Amino acid sequence: MSPTRTRTEHDLLGERDVPADAYYGVHTLRAIENFPITGTPISTYPGLIAALAAIKQAAALTNRELGLLDAPRANAIIAACEEVRAGALHEQFVVDVIQGGAGTSTNMNANEVIANRALEIIGFNRGEYARLHPNEHVNMSQSTNDVYPTALKLAGYWGVMSLIEAMQILREAFGDKAREFAGVLKMGRTQLQDAVPMTLGQEFSTYEEMLGEDIARLREAALLICEINLGATAIGTGINAHPDYAGLVRQHLATITGIPVLTAPNLVEATQDCGAFVQLSGVLKRVAVKLSKVCNDLRLLSSGPRAGLGEINLPPMQAGSSIMPGKVNPVIPEVVNQIAFEVIGNDLTISFAAEAGQLQLNAFEPIIAHSLFKSVTHLRAGCLTLTERCVRGITANHEALRRSVENSIGLVTALNPYIGYENATSIAREALLTGGSVYELVLQRGLLTRQQLNEILQPEVLTQPRRPVSLA
Amino acid sequence: MSPTRTRTEHDLLGERDVPADAYYGVHTLRAIENFPITGTPISTYPGLIAALAAIKQAAALTNRELGLLDAPRANAIIAACEEVRAGALHEQFVVDVIQGGAGTSTNMNANEVIANRALEIIGFNRGEYARLHPNEHVNMSQSTNDVYPTALKLAGYWGVMSLIEAMQILREAFGDKAREFAGVLKMGRTQLQDAVPMTLGQEFSTYEEMLGEDIARLREAALLICEINLGATAIGTGINAHPDYAGLVRQHLATITGIPVLTAPNLVEATQDCGAFVQLSGVLKRVAVKLSKVCNDLRLLSSGPRAGLGEINLPPMQAGSSIMPGKVNPVIPEVVNQIAFEVIGNDLTISFAAEAGQLQLNAFEPIIAHSLFKSVTHLRAGCLTLTERCVRGITANHEALRRSVENSIGLVTALNPYIGYENATSIAREALLTGGSVYELVLQRGLLTRQQLNEILQPEVLTQPRRPVSLA
Amino acid sequence: MSPTRTRTEHDLLGERDVPADAYYGVHTLRAIENFPITGTPISTYPGLIAALAAIKQAAALTNRELGLLDAPRANAIIAACEEVRAGALHEQFVVDVIQGGAGTSTNMNANEVIANRALEIIGFNRGEYARLHPNEHVNMSQSTNDVYPTALKLAGYWGVMSLIEAMQILREAFGDKAREFAGVLKMGRTQLQDAVPMTLGQEFSTYEEMLGEDIARLREAALLICEINLGATAIGTGINAHPDYAGLVRQHLATITGIPVLTAPNLVEATQDCGAFVQLSGVLKRVAVKLSKVCNDLRLLSSGPRAGLGEINLPPMQAGSSIMPGKVNPVIPEVVNQIAFEVIGNDLTISFAAEAGQLQLNAFEPIIAHSLFKSVTHLRAGCLTLTERCVRGITANHEALRRSVENSIGLVTALNPYIGYENATSIAREALLTGGSVYELVLQRGLLTRQQLNEILQPEVLTQPRRPVSLA
Amino acid sequence: MSPTRTRTEHDLLGERDVPADAYYGVHTLRAIENFPITGTPISTYPGLIAALAAIKQAAALTNRELGLLDAPRANAIIAACEEVRAGALHEQFVVDVIQGGAGTSTNMNANEVIANRALEIIGFNRGEYARLHPNEHVNMSQSTNDVYPTALKLAGYWGVMSLIEAMQILREAFGDKAREFAGVLKMGRTQLQDAVPMTLGQEFSTYEEMLGEDIARLREAALLICEINLGATAIGTGINAHPDYAGLVRQHLATITGIPVLTAPNLVEATQDCGAFVQLSGVLKRVAVKLSKVCNDLRLLSSGPRAGLGEINLPPMQAGSSIMPGKVNPVIPEVVNQIAFEVIGNDLTISFAAEAGQLQLNAFEPIIAHSLFKSVTHLRAGCLTLTERCVRGITANHEALRRSVENSIGLVTALNPYIGYENATSIAREALLTGGSVYELVLQRGLLTRQQLNEILQPEVLTQPRRPVSLA
Repeated sequence: MSPTRTRTEHDLLGERDVPADAYYGVHTLRAIENFPITGTPISTYPGLIAALAAIKQAAALTNRELGLLDAPRANAIIAACEEVRAGALHEQFVVDVIQGGAGTSTNMNANEVIANRALEIIGFNRGEYARLHPNEHVNMSQSTNDVYPTALKLAGYWGVMSLIEAMQILREAFGDKAREFAGVLKMGRTQLQDAVPMTLGQEFSTYEEMLGEDIARLREAALLICEINLGATAIGTGINAHPDYAGLVRQHLATITGIPVLTAPNLVEATQDCGAFVQLSGVLKRVAVKLSKVCNDLRLLSSGPRAGLGEINLPPMQAGSSIMPGKVNPVIPEVVNQIAFEVIGNDLTISFAAEAGQLQLNAFEPIIAHSLFKSVTHLRAGCLTLTERCVRGITANHEALRRSVENSIGLVTALNPYIGYENATSIAREALLTGGSVYELVLQRGLLTRQQLNEILQPEVLTQPRRPVSLA
Repeated sequence: MSPTRTRTEHDLLGERDVPADAYYGVHTLRAIENFPITGTPISTYPGLIAALAAIKQAAALTNRELGLLDAPRANAIIAACEEVRAGALHEQFVVDVIQGGAGTSTNMNANEVIANRALEIIGFNRGEYARLHPNEHVNMSQSTNDVYPTALKLAGYWGVMSLIEAMQILREAFGDKAREFAGVLKMGRTQLQDAVPMTLGQEFSTYEEMLGEDIARLREAALLICEINLGATAIGTGINAHPDYAGLVRQHLATITGIPVLTAPNLVEATQDCGAFVQLSGVLKRVAVKLSKVCNDLRLLSSGPRAGLGEINLPPMQAGSSIMPGKVNPVIPEVVNQIAFEVIGNDLTISFAAEAGQLQLNAFEPIIAHSLFKSVTHLRAGCLTLTERCVRGITANHEALRRSVENSIGLVTALNPYIGYENATSIAREALLTGGSVYELVLQRGLLTRQQLNEILQPEVLTQPRRPVSLA
Repeated sequence: MSPTRTRTEHDLLGERDVPADAYYGVHTLRAIENFPITGTPISTYPGLIAALAAIKQAAALTNRELGLLDAPRANAIIAACEEVRAGALHEQFVVDVIQGGAGTSTNMNANEVIANRALEIIGFNRGEYARLHPNEHVNMSQSTNDVYPTALKLAGYWGVMSLIEAMQILREAFGDKAREFAGVLKMGRTQLQDAVPMTLGQEFSTYEEMLGEDIARLREAALLICEINLGATAIGTGINAHPDYAGLVRQHLATITGIPVLTAPNLVEATQDCGAFVQLSGVLKRVAVKLSKVCNDLRLLSSGPRAGLGEINLPPMQAGSSIMPGKVNPVIPEVVNQIAFEVIGNDLTISFAAEAGQLQLNAFEPIIAHSLFKSVTHLRAGCLTLTERCVRGITANHEALRRSVENSIGLVTALNPYIGYENATSIAREALLTGGSVYELVLQRGLLTRQQLNEILQPEVLTQPRRPVSLA
Repeated sequence: MSPTRTRTEHDLLGERDVPADAYYGVHTLRAIENFPITGTPISTYPGLIAALAAIKQAAALTNRELGLLDAPRANAIIAACEEVRAGALHEQFVVDVIQGGAGTSTNMNANEVIANRALEIIGFNRGEYARLHPNEHVNMSQSTNDVYPTALKLAGYWGVMSLIEAMQILREAFGDKAREFAGVLKMGRTQLQDAVPMTLGQEFSTYEEMLGEDIARLREAALLICEINLGATAIGTGINAHPDYAGLVRQHLATITGIPVLTAPNLVEATQDCGAFVQLSGVLKRVAVKLSKVCNDLRLLSSGPRAGLGEINLPPMQAGSSIMPGKVNPVIPEVVNQIAFEVIGNDLTISFAAEAGQLQLNAFEPIIAHSLFKSVTHLRAGCLTLTERCVRGITANHEALRRSVENSIGLVTALNPYIGYENATSIAREALLTGGSVYELVLQRGLLTRQQLNEILQPEVLTQPRRPVSLA
């Protein structure tokens, strides 16, 4: 008596025993053995599994409609796909996220799971492929080379929409702080050197604005991955596909997923091209680069508490040190910085993989997918934790900020139009060397009167353009 | 008696002698000494010099209009700018392309050259800054921090337009080949393994299509860098700028350059943000990745002459070897591959520089500019040489191509819908092991008749979708 | 009645309930909440957990020896560490692999698990930290800033040794093939164009040699990460550490781990520096780049079966296509290519993280660790699957190889010393245009006699240096 | 009458007119036309030209010695090479730094210039190749595929030695500052938050130490590029080379250049492998990453003058702003940061180019060379300008530094061993909230006496390990 019951399946290499209770079959089994790389199965990305099921469902609907697939088989496949899309059987999608074969193992895994579930639905046993075959029926009118990239695009689209949602939340949190700090005057800095006054609200508004722009760029990139190549089959020539297939399957897929998918104008090109993934990843890199810059700023502005800039306080989230009591560190921005560095690395992986495509196909789409999905999900997690555990709790050190402006040499810039660049330079130089104040030095030299100075240096007008003050 | 005549200028560090015939001044001199890095002056990028002059001209027009600058000085500045834009005095723009100071040295170089030329125009000597001052008059209402990024954007825009022009020429060359080879049947390949038939015209049409898409993406990215921050002055708050300045200077600049520049909605954000450069560079990386893939294909398809794929011939451009007589190599695609690798490296440099921005400014814009301009100009050169010296002269090896299709196991895919995946797999396996032909094996097994096979395997329909042939 | 029993712990932020059966405590709990990024816990890297336990054990031994820690507590800590090193409690190491805080959460997690297990060992309950405290006793004389990088180095060292083992196996497999194919003549290629003859054995010997060199480089890089900073405590000044601590703990750690660890000469430098990680990652990138090149070659040489180079056959590992029956693809080299692309991306992430270090610490070591560990473990998996499932089963297509040499124009190079570069060029050109053979053309032109040609073109001497043949 | 006199040369593509006064010939002419990419000729790298001449000289010596080349021709070639090595004729090396053809054009350029100069030396006219031929005599026993990579290695070696020299100078400057600031107490920082005391000397000693380590790594990497493949000829099999050639030419080359060159054990491997370049570039990236980190620190520590950390002052080098009078920026560290970003980008370009090698050759060595030489020369320039124009002039703000320590909450860490982590945490928390001093709070709570506190907090012992103070 065997402890594990099995069923026998075969492929072009021969026969193999598959666990009797597995919904996957021999092709998936081979892939498990061939790719023991990360230990992470593709089910880690539920969006990918749902996308595969959506495509198989749209194909079955189309094949039924075109008279290529009989209704009982088509209906069983459709029912199985609905179940998978609702979350069932995801644990049967077991091939490794890093795999050879240009996604064939992922597609085969989907074909097998859906075929076996469909067999059950119509009353047969798993493995009775003469009744309903993974390749002939579930994969009908399809090839990995159109199914797989289309699935990546659907899953990518959902992922990006979910990321945008998180970015929107972060954007609003920055916007709230911009309004909260609208009246808080501080010194602006360029090249880490004191420059001219601004408000802390203006500083936070830049983060709000930046996220808004990045969201707009992501939306554009997301639209580009809505262009799919279903109907291309093996290399884009549409071999074995009905002439009406591409158009119909697109409609069904759009209905099922709610994504505005379009069929690429040149399917041979679309089948080999990874440009849309490179572009999307490039925009994700942009998001990462800028998010990292924002986190660098937050860490810098909150440096201290006593030997740093100390302009703002991040909410304490955990003890900062195993040896230094009471130390609190900017751990949330730090984790976002690291996500950003990962995303930038992922982008490079994608560039390498895309460049390595040859002739009619890019065999390296699995690592493109893995890298892209990691970037999207980690960025989303980073935005949410940054919002909840950092930005919303930021407070300002009002006194320190005010003092830094009053004490500043940078005020001299505002006097430029009245006393000239050369005089102003001389005043600045003296202030620096003597520790004196710009205000007093201007008075001492008789360049302006106290009244004129007060007029020019009104805090509320230093932080915006204005007409030159009349000193007459 | 001194061999070199000089004039004395001063800055906040003291006095220095400048060559009497130099149009640049003390600030430029300091920069030359501080940044002896590459030996390449900024005049390498004429678009950048023209952009700086256009901005100074627009500023002078605006300042005159707002009553901030008297007409004689304004007119002299404008005249000097016109000359520089027409190509004069470029050799006076001598600071190194890699420089510290966030572009200040580049802006100072422009201010000094324009001031000295303007001084001459109104009858004074170079260096008589009391009459017309580089900072007070040429730079009026401006800061490096709005002038420099705006100049990069104008120069970048011109560069991208010029690149698109070259890509368009390459695209048309590929299109011509696609039409020339429309009837040439060949085997398509996936994962470097024989797949199914296609035409050589389809293969070249993918390159045409790809370039068309990349051009569209570049146009979008170019529009993003039309958003400028003139009027931001030091940090975006517009200190020392008249409230009407930003709007007016934008109009003048658009008129002078013909570029549809827009003023950024949040100038504080726009002054510190490098997102548009990162995005543009990301799209250039996309172009590079795909161009490299195309060149990889061209090199692969032309491999041989006898021990390679030998499907196409690239025109010979030079002797290929110093030891192997008669060897001809694909040197033109090779140089384009290398340009692509450089562009991908440049993109990384830009990512690093953008991420390193701090608070109200990114101090590393000079290396962003240098990297971007190299990418754009080298890609343009690569597209042109690829068109002229390679693509236009490509010929097809018709016989070898035809033979590869007739001889192919991949034809079995077309039989899939008639004999099923399992039978087809078995036929393919036997053909591979015995060296036999798919056609004969199908006949031998009695799976289809000769007439049916001829019907299914018509060359002209293998390369496009079609309704299943009725075998009744 | 509560469904989950808990105990209460506190930290500087207040009290929190921890699951009663957890060995980790409040600091770990905060980290779980703060860093919900990847869902992958640090226990994914068992080497890291073992390394942490080894360090805590070495510290306890040293503290006991220096009279800083009483024997009962020290012994309990040591016993707990031994258990963890043997594989126990790994599931209690739950903080995310991507985390803020420069590794503090990982160190705290270790301190808490070991403290609670030690408490049990000496008969107290988990959480009774007044008896034995995670920070005061388990972490005594330590800081995250010396414990964490040291743990990364130990785990990295083990990982690299394990990778070298796999590379050695792959190297031997290539060596076996080099010997098997030692007599198989083939055309060498440069720039994908036919060059001069070589043996297939020489081709495979390059892969053997290459791996040998890479192993040597990895060994050197592994030695560099044996330099640790234990005793540095917070920033390298050794605050709160006994003057004899660094020396003693190093000895204990070397004994426990068998790794030849050395104490860095400048602990302030060693605490902030990530150079050894960057170097190691750079060497891993080298390994990846070259392994990818080898896999590119294997895929190219096995291209076909009929419309490719078809020089070698890779063993079939799975069906290659869901639509193309009988297609077999190079899936194993493809997965290794993708691992290589991932490693190159990881290297970039590490570069970014290393560059972002500030002042006395690099806060981004967690992403450095995660990236490094992924690279090492995936490369190892790739080498093993490449050996077992590809290289060992490679066979040569002897006839095709022989024919390509006999038929070759490249033979003309061997005639260069006898007929001169100019004559040889002319012969090559004619052969190419007419399809003729070099041998016959030389005879026709009367440049050499048949006997002389046979003498020069002996296959066995074409593939090595030799004295010019005397033609007298 | 023609304005430009020419001579006619021919190659396998036909006849072409070359300027009569050019030392280069038809092959170089074709290359100029084929590769109009950067406008930068290879003579930009004088080390490369010298290396080519050294190799040609060593080859002529060896060929003469082996009786393959008659003395008059050999001697003329040797004399011409000596002249080029002394700096003559560099302006004749005109092919573009980015070129296709795997370096063939560079090698051909060298062969032609040396042949024509040698022709002159023995009394013939340029172009009389029947007397002395670029390929048959100057290139005898050689191929681009062994000459070119060997030349890159020689030039790379010289470049690295020159870089090490500059790094040594910078290292000493940091060492001088470390000694100058040995007694200056300051707060150390981790994660930008105040940590524990250290000295400014310790801070600068880390930079000294870091450079020392990097120099050691560079020396190791430089040794790896001493392994050459001369004698490999076309693909490493040594076709057309005398069996004694490789050994003899190595000896001559070592004598001529003074570089300890070694012949690679497997020449087929050595001819296709770019591992040593990848490794060297990886180490250059390490140098860049760390140099960038140091410059980030310098910019941060000198931030201010009033609203920053203000711990040190960098010497002012130029006016910092065109609008903000008196502003001085850290322009020298900034330029070094940018060089570092460029080097990291170059490393990526090299990785891409190395990975793209196929079969017996890497066709992309020209971009590897260009990237490597840029990295080496720009890093050298950066180190020198950083030393001269920044590090040597750095001064400390003693008072600000002292105050930050006295005022610090981080002092509480030193009390950890006496009052425990929990008490210390509570004190730190209260100090932060109330603005109070740690010293006073400890006294208030009666945890230690004033005498004990003074004993523990002696400045001179806070910055090094020590035995716990006895408080009895």
